[in-house]
Amino acid sequence: MAEEVVLLDFWPSMFGVRVRIVLVEKGIEYEYREEDLRNKSSLLLQMNPVHKQIPVLIQNGKPVCESSIIVQYIDEVWHDKAPLLPSDPYQRAQARFWVDFIDKKLYNPSRRIWSTKGEELEAAKKEFIEVLKVLEEQLKDKPFFGGETFGYVDVCLIGYYCWFYAYETFGNFSIEAECPQIIAWAKRCTQKESVSKSLPDGKKVFGFVQELRKKFVVD
Amino acid sequence: MAEEVVLLDFWPSMFGVRVRIVLVEKGIEYEYREEDLRNKSSLLLQMNPVHKQIPVLIQNGKPVCESSIIVQYIDEVWHDKAPLLPSDPYQRAQARFWVDFIDKKLYNPSRRIWSTKGEELEAAKKEFIEVLKVLEEQLKDKPFFGGETFGYVDVCLIGYYCWFYAYETFGNFSIEAECPQIIAWAKRCTQKESVSKSLPDGKKVFGFVQELRKKFVVD
Repeated sequence: MAEEVVLLDFWPSMFGVRVRIVLVEKGIEYEYREEDLRNKSSLLLQMNPVHKQIPVLIQNGKPVCESSIIVQYIDEVWHDKAPLLPSDPYQRAQARFWVDFIDKKLYNPSRRIWSTKGEELEAAKKEFIEVLKVLEEQLKDKPFFGGETFGYVDVCLIGYYCWFYAYETFGNFSIEAECPQIIAWAKRCTQKESVSKSLPDGKKVFGFVQELRKKFVVD
Repeated sequence: MAEEVVLLDFWPSMFGVRVRIVLVEKGIEYEYREEDLRNKSSLLLQMNPVHKQIPVLIQNGKPVCESSIIVQYIDEVWHDKAPLLPSDPYQRAQARFWVDFIDKKLYNPSRRIWSTKGEELEAAKKEFIEVLKVLEEQLKDKPFFGGETFGYVDVCLIGYYCWFYAYETFGNFSIEAECPQIIAWAKRCTQKESVSKSLPDGKKVFGFVQELRKKFVVD
């Protein structure tokens, strides 16, 4: 059966980026449908009635939701090309642990960097850097989180990279000064075509955040 | 090689219950080590330095952390007996979606039921019931979340059941009146020896919560 694959997404989403990268890695043809999050499509509401969020992968009419679950699903179904999760169960559990860590710990402070100011902003920056330093300690001197090849943890973290310029500008700090190995890792990731093709431009994200920020912060 | 399996746990934990159930389901012999969460063991801090939380499964000296990841890990390593995740990748993604939903949506309101009062308590009860109703709608008239057999979603939800008596008593409401099918499902689960052996007694949990509550609520 010919596969019909549709991705409901929103261009600056670090979660959507995960799915876009994996679809390129696996060589899967798909239709990209941009969502207007202020006016969500009936298809999005129908395909993800619980969370009503992007990204949603629709394969032959059947939805898969939540980006880290979508990535695992794609890796399991299209398992012959560019495997992302380790084949060893223990290493797989460790990869899941770090993706879970990213999902639980990184989003909240990263959001507060551009949506708060003063003491709240300082606390957000501190927390954000602490989380990145834990990840840096985990990366050590390996090229990628899983070792020699680009994998599940890399896919799930790299989407944040296109937001770094916005974080640094609104937070007035340098992520590279704090976490040089994370930046070296991110640059290594962007040498992959699947990543460079899927990551939005940092300045474009900055422009988007600048607009969004008007709702939260009065400069 | 003989497997040496140790579980670091704390008896009322709905997350620890998940792992206890699966270890019984799979017929895995293990050593249970109760943690004092006010005075965590050096082993816990060493095995889970990131979150410093139970449960931790230690297999031949190597730790696996985060209950839903531990359950998947055990299911993958001991895959011949009592499979918990569906073998079909799409069904597996759906099971992961619902466990993720439980983890994101149920814990927070359930905690607020016994740790707040007044309007905050009423909001917590409303949210808790809404989440259970979404799950009930998903269960429909199936015996278990995955269909005919006890599986991943059941394992990850049933640990809350031993807290229901405490929620109902402190919240002054009946979960059964709101979600009768969830209660019927829970009773069905407790007919399994793996569940009845692993779930602490609801009145004992109530006693524990009563003590804990003194820190949060002045009656």
